[in-house]
Amino acid sequence: MGDDVVSDRVDFERYLASCRSLVIEHLRAMVAARRRAQRLYARMLEYPLREAKALRPALCLATCRALGGRVEQALPTATALELYHNAFLVHDDVEDGSLMRRGGPALQHMFGVPIAVNVGDAMLAASLDPLLNNVEHLGLGRALRILRVVSRMARESAEGQAVELDWIRDDTWDLTPRDYRRLVYQKTCWYTFVAPMLCGAIAASHDVDDARLWAIERFAIEVGVAFQIHDDVLNLTAPDGAYGKEAHGDLWEGKRTLMVLDAVARSTPDEAAEFRRRFAIPRAEKTDGDVRFLSAFLTERGSVARAAELASRWAGRAERSLRAMPWMRPSLHRDVLVFLCRYVTERTR
Amino acid sequence: MGDDVVSDRVDFERYLASCRSLVIEHLRAMVAARRRAQRLYARMLEYPLREAKALRPALCLATCRALGGRVEQALPTATALELYHNAFLVHDDVEDGSLMRRGGPALQHMFGVPIAVNVGDAMLAASLDPLLNNVEHLGLGRALRILRVVSRMARESAEGQAVELDWIRDDTWDLTPRDYRRLVYQKTCWYTFVAPMLCGAIAASHDVDDARLWAIERFAIEVGVAFQIHDDVLNLTAPDGAYGKEAHGDLWEGKRTLMVLDAVARSTPDEAAEFRRRFAIPRAEKTDGDVRFLSAFLTERGSVARAAELASRWAGRAERSLRAMPWMRPSLHRDVLVFLCRYVTERTR
Repeated sequence: MGDDVVSDRVDFERYLASCRSLVIEHLRAMVAARRRAQRLYARMLEYPLREAKALRPALCLATCRALGGRVEQALPTATALELYHNAFLVHDDVEDGSLMRRGGPALQHMFGVPIAVNVGDAMLAASLDPLLNNVEHLGLGRALRILRVVSRMARESAEGQAVELDWIRDDTWDLTPRDYRRLVYQKTCWYTFVAPMLCGAIAASHDVDDARLWAIERFAIEVGVAFQIHDDVLNLTAPDGAYGKEAHGDLWEGKRTLMVLDAVARSTPDEAAEFRRRFAIPRAEKTDGDVRFLSAFLTERGSVARAAELASRWAGRAERSLRAMPWMRPSLHRDVLVFLCRYVTERTR
Repeated sequence: MGDDVVSDRVDFERYLASCRSLVIEHLRAMVAARRRAQRLYARMLEYPLREAKALRPALCLATCRALGGRVEQALPTATALELYHNAFLVHDDVEDGSLMRRGGPALQHMFGVPIAVNVGDAMLAASLDPLLNNVEHLGLGRALRILRVVSRMARESAEGQAVELDWIRDDTWDLTPRDYRRLVYQKTCWYTFVAPMLCGAIAASHDVDDARLWAIERFAIEVGVAFQIHDDVLNLTAPDGAYGKEAHGDLWEGKRTLMVLDAVARSTPDEAAEFRRRFAIPRAEKTDGDVRFLSAFLTERGSVARAAELASRWAGRAERSLRAMPWMRPSLHRDVLVFLCRYVTERTR
């Protein structure tokens, strides 16, 4: 990494933590400005205040600053993205009946389902506020461009989620690596990488041109694909408890990861049929034995190793894309984006 | 009503139906423009296509046209409001475990909870689109003003909902009619009347002044209070099945209506204590006997009759406010708003 300032994980995580502090401070100020329903606003802070990486706001701020922008230009948008994300976590926990989130009880176990759902709705509503207030700092045009990016993010992730749920529901198998990539583009890349970075870039300067935005988007897609493939691998290989999400959750739920498509393609018709049969068993009826069989199936065919290898290739591609942006001058913030390319495939949770 | 063109319920409902057709046509066009996830978009139309009054888009369109605007100026916003409202119905049905909605199965009974939640999210995401497209028809300034109104609507209704849920959860009784009115202002007036009408007014003209907006807002608040008080009365008095919502649902859930506050205030301490005890029993443990007792308590003290009377007074006040807007010239659309003042207290469902 040469003379990069952020050259190890500790620096990187320190940078994320500092961005998270700024966002939390901004959130607290938003909440303090409300006269009514103070308890509602206190509950809205419950998830954001729990330990978390807060990757999205950090990417928004880092991109803005790497392009010469100031913190204040991107902070309201970074805050909106974090609030939006936490709203979805609240609703997801209700939907999945989750018990825990980030080391504490899921919100509906603290306040009941109706209040939890309402808190999520209130967070979605509140996330619009800083985006509208962008008008004052950034002007009408940029505020609106950022709103368009956030609107597209919401659409892409909902569409991606719909496609994946239908694959499971319909037990779809005529899928190629391209279908997987398209899904990841919609549900991971846009939500976690493309939207935060594009928003940061737009906030940085009122004349960032389309070619630069496109270069940033391509980088965000590449690093996002690496992130998701590595996430799929972690889901299979991380010891129970070490990984933030449920170990083997993807196999319990029947998610079509690249490894699943690869292993099935490399099997005899009989083997593939047996894999598909067990894979399609609904979660409530699947057994530990089924999941062990499915997991071994992917490992034995080398699909896990190949996926890990592919994630590294995407991460390398992302790093080359980033280093090919001469207009993004050396800085701590650019270093964070460079280190991100290592982080996405080296992280263990 | 003199020479008003819309002078009966049939005309009024025909007007609502014609607005609803326009909105559905606009929704279909939005959906047809999407290349991907077509099944998701088909599911997003499921609730909007079922028989419904579609009051919000009609009020948005009527206000725009009553102020001299054209349909096309308000139609995208009216569509966004209807989509937003239907998204909330989808999520509410999941949250409440409802079986039916508008004469058909609740969405989660057609596709399962995960897909239903996702369809609701996708509808919320899609509702931003027409609001952003307002920039092309209405210009940046008006598009942004409308977004601010919608953002405030989302905030007011979430806050109102939070306040009401806390009253139930904390078994709060130190409430006055003023607290009730404040709640209705946030959860009913803003959502169903103020936001649709303000959006319609802003869409109508680029120079609608604040005094006129405030006059419209006051009218919307008055008619909204009448609507909600009448709704509370209907919830108690409509025969089972005739009313769109569950009969006596407010008593089962422990909602602090004006009638409840009134009856308790007019009782001896012992009577009031018994009422409050039964009222506070959680839904799952309440009996039919409890609800019959609570209902009789309100009727016998004259609280239902007084509420009905009060709803009429608010409706009368709203009509006078409307007739005191000389700049809203006579038209079919103004007549609809005049008739609305009768409709809100005469409707039976």
